[in-house]
Amino acid sequence: MQDRRDFIKLSAAVAAFLGLPVSKTHARETVEERLHTLTNQPYRRGPSVMGLKKAPIDQVRVAFIGLGNRGPGHMRHVAALGDKAKITAICDIREERTTKAMDFLSSKGIKPAVYAGKADAYKEMLQRDDIDLVIIATPWDDHVPMAVETMRHGKHVAIEVPVAVTLEGHWELVNTAEETQLNCMMMENVCYGDEELWIMNMVHSGVFGTLTYGEAAYIHDLKGSMFSKTGYYDMFRIRHHVRQDGNLYPTHGLGPVAQYMDIGRGDRFDHMVSMSSLEAGLSEHSKTVEQDNEFYNRSDFMHGDMNSSLIKTAQGRTILVQHDVVTPRPYSRINALAGTKAYHEGYPSRLSLASKHGGHQWLNEEEYADMRRRYTHPIWEDLKEEIAANGGHGGMDFVQIYRLIDCLNRGLPLDMDVYDGADWSVVTPLSKISTELGSVPVKFPDFTRDSWKEKRSYGIMANL
Amino acid sequence: MQDRRDFIKLSAAVAAFLGLPVSKTHARETVEERLHTLTNQPYRRGPSVMGLKKAPIDQVRVAFIGLGNRGPGHMRHVAALGDKAKITAICDIREERTTKAMDFLSSKGIKPAVYAGKADAYKEMLQRDDIDLVIIATPWDDHVPMAVETMRHGKHVAIEVPVAVTLEGHWELVNTAEETQLNCMMMENVCYGDEELWIMNMVHSGVFGTLTYGEAAYIHDLKGSMFSKTGYYDMFRIRHHVRQDGNLYPTHGLGPVAQYMDIGRGDRFDHMVSMSSLEAGLSEHSKTVEQDNEFYNRSDFMHGDMNSSLIKTAQGRTILVQHDVVTPRPYSRINALAGTKAYHEGYPSRLSLASKHGGHQWLNEEEYADMRRRYTHPIWEDLKEEIAANGGHGGMDFVQIYRLIDCLNRGLPLDMDVYDGADWSVVTPLSKISTELGSVPVKFPDFTRDSWKEKRSYGIMANL
Repeated sequence: MQDRRDFIKLSAAVAAFLGLPVSKTHARETVEERLHTLTNQPYRRGPSVMGLKKAPIDQVRVAFIGLGNRGPGHMRHVAALGDKAKITAICDIREERTTKAMDFLSSKGIKPAVYAGKADAYKEMLQRDDIDLVIIATPWDDHVPMAVETMRHGKHVAIEVPVAVTLEGHWELVNTAEETQLNCMMMENVCYGDEELWIMNMVHSGVFGTLTYGEAAYIHDLKGSMFSKTGYYDMFRIRHHVRQDGNLYPTHGLGPVAQYMDIGRGDRFDHMVSMSSLEAGLSEHSKTVEQDNEFYNRSDFMHGDMNSSLIKTAQGRTILVQHDVVTPRPYSRINALAGTKAYHEGYPSRLSLASKHGGHQWLNEEEYADMRRRYTHPIWEDLKEEIAANGGHGGMDFVQIYRLIDCLNRGLPLDMDVYDGADWSVVTPLSKISTELGSVPVKFPDFTRDSWKEKRSYGIMANL
Repeated sequence: MQDRRDFIKLSAAVAAFLGLPVSKTHARETVEERLHTLTNQPYRRGPSVMGLKKAPIDQVRVAFIGLGNRGPGHMRHVAALGDKAKITAICDIREERTTKAMDFLSSKGIKPAVYAGKADAYKEMLQRDDIDLVIIATPWDDHVPMAVETMRHGKHVAIEVPVAVTLEGHWELVNTAEETQLNCMMMENVCYGDEELWIMNMVHSGVFGTLTYGEAAYIHDLKGSMFSKTGYYDMFRIRHHVRQDGNLYPTHGLGPVAQYMDIGRGDRFDHMVSMSSLEAGLSEHSKTVEQDNEFYNRSDFMHGDMNSSLIKTAQGRTILVQHDVVTPRPYSRINALAGTKAYHEGYPSRLSLASKHGGHQWLNEEEYADMRRRYTHPIWEDLKEEIAANGGHGGMDFVQIYRLIDCLNRGLPLDMDVYDGADWSVVTPLSKISTELGSVPVKFPDFTRDSWKEKRSYGIMANL
């Protein structure tokens, strides 16, 4: 209930201006004060890690924290890379998870150290000196403390999405990466999707003309897993819906669209507004679950069924970002991109070109196939066999792990840096603020401290 | 250039709060003052026209102002209704348009009076005493003065979309309808579409469960017609793109979604935010048109390529409304509706139900066809032959004219009243304000003056 009382409250004057009701009981923090903290850049502890290059690591020694829903897949992909990497340690608070992981690893002749059975087992693991990279796939609230601790022990870190849920957490990651001069990458696997890299390639080849707007989403009916006692560790995900409104999971849709638009590489997110619908999905569903479920017959979900945010970039582009994990509808990340010469929309993937049918119709099957052939990213050709053998969300998971390890092997900057992860993930706390204040515009913090203006290419696009 | 200078300007304090730059040169109107006019209801001149009933008119005598793009279709549909209506007068500023209309009407043995050749020919026509209803299909700026004049002459009026483009214009229509106790209907033909009435029928039958959000749009690449010297009278449409930003054409998408959600009949639009992308489509296209075109090589278009608005209703529902008439992409009004039990999305029409495939997949062809059969609105069955013979956007135009005349014949309230038209159409000036002020939330005026809370059914749904 703490979060509920911690609502950011409007000052009476601002509330009147916006025509919104004022709650006089909790007015201790004014909007002005709150928004000041958004744009106020914390003291910098080290130089920028943009384009960070480290000495090549012939064989990357990898450790894992969290072997629940996402960790085991990453572990299998690392194991598939042969001599490029070595799994030296694994950790999960639940011993049955490390045991299950060891069943797989043993069968491959891999024998890492195992840490399990208590909440800070990972801290012991981080004492080891045979770890170069830690992959974290734990509940969202744990990401920041675990990643910071990892970097403080001199190790690179890759964190599952979202990297953080609070504004302060995002700054803490950026500041720690700069202080320690280590990689802190958010594992946005969708940026490695076949469709997404194809679009990136078309954007870079000028197919879209001038980019104007995009649409991104996480639309995925998760009611079943959220109410399941075993779907997420300690049912952590549904607890977020009791705690706050806004977009809880922006990055799968937004990451690729941000890359199409060169966010952090010539453009940046400037400000956003966010609006949520009423909540109905979870409270209605809660009446249908077993009575011994902690969330049976609950109506205290603060999180609206559909959250829509609109982002404006410094270059004037706009992005719609949606979040809906309760409506009975098919999965979609939308993945729309508009330019003056072309338009793409996903689910299913469709493309229109000004140069065909005047842009008034989708490309037909043959025309579409031709564009796919011409602009498929070469990595999806080069790794065809490995992708088929390893998969993971259609292959994007494998390609991500491959690139992460390969860049460390070769001493190249990673494809995505701590600024990318922070830019995309910070939509969660910003959307919380905007929705709570009746959809007021909220400025994005500039994690890059003005370095976003430099044009620079994504690692994965530089090799084309 | 007047409109450009008339930008609504932020007060320094509010701008600082929003983190936006302040222009000190044009600060004569503060946001507070401007938003006050939004919620300040003008003095009421007559009782509400909600549910207005008038004596039956056996044969409705109809006159037309504007025989350009939309008028001739309406005229043909009225002519197809036999004794239910009689066309008594027609008017257009261009004599070639009335001549062309007369070619058609004469062939049907219809001989109305003709008014043409000057801007106020319509005023002479309105002096006649053999007109019950005037159908107005002229450039947008003319709608309000023509409709007001029509009502002042004791005649009902039906106006093409949008009814008005300024906030004051919307109030003027509402006030005049109340003062004269006459019908003032916006001709939102899409509300009569087969797909839209099918969805309405499902909503009323409980198929969607609790409604949470919807999506509406006008996505239609009109670059060709806008740059054409003959596409719109005096190229009026492209001039709006020079004049202002925002959503210039919200009602085709929004009208049906508003009806699904009982706006004005138990719910209302409460506030909205709006954001536009940069402008690129028209200025790039302007380089490709003939050099004697007034809009050749222009870059002074204020209107962003994609405008997205988010509306929140009093009941907490949300609606995304988009406007894009320049991107090379296929036509769409989106027509999405989400509830706790079902989800629909158009282009192409797809439906998911919690009760089938757990909602995780679209209904297959057979399941979808079954839902179409079960919930098709009976009017589309009853008028099948007339719709096939008359058409008009797939039939929706004919059904609209049929219902308009039929309700007047029978002395029934029209399906859509002046409050509906104002609620949907006022998104244009509100989106202008919000975009100009950096996407601040803007309250909707309550044109119904608190009467929206009454539940009441749409005429076309009451006969089921």
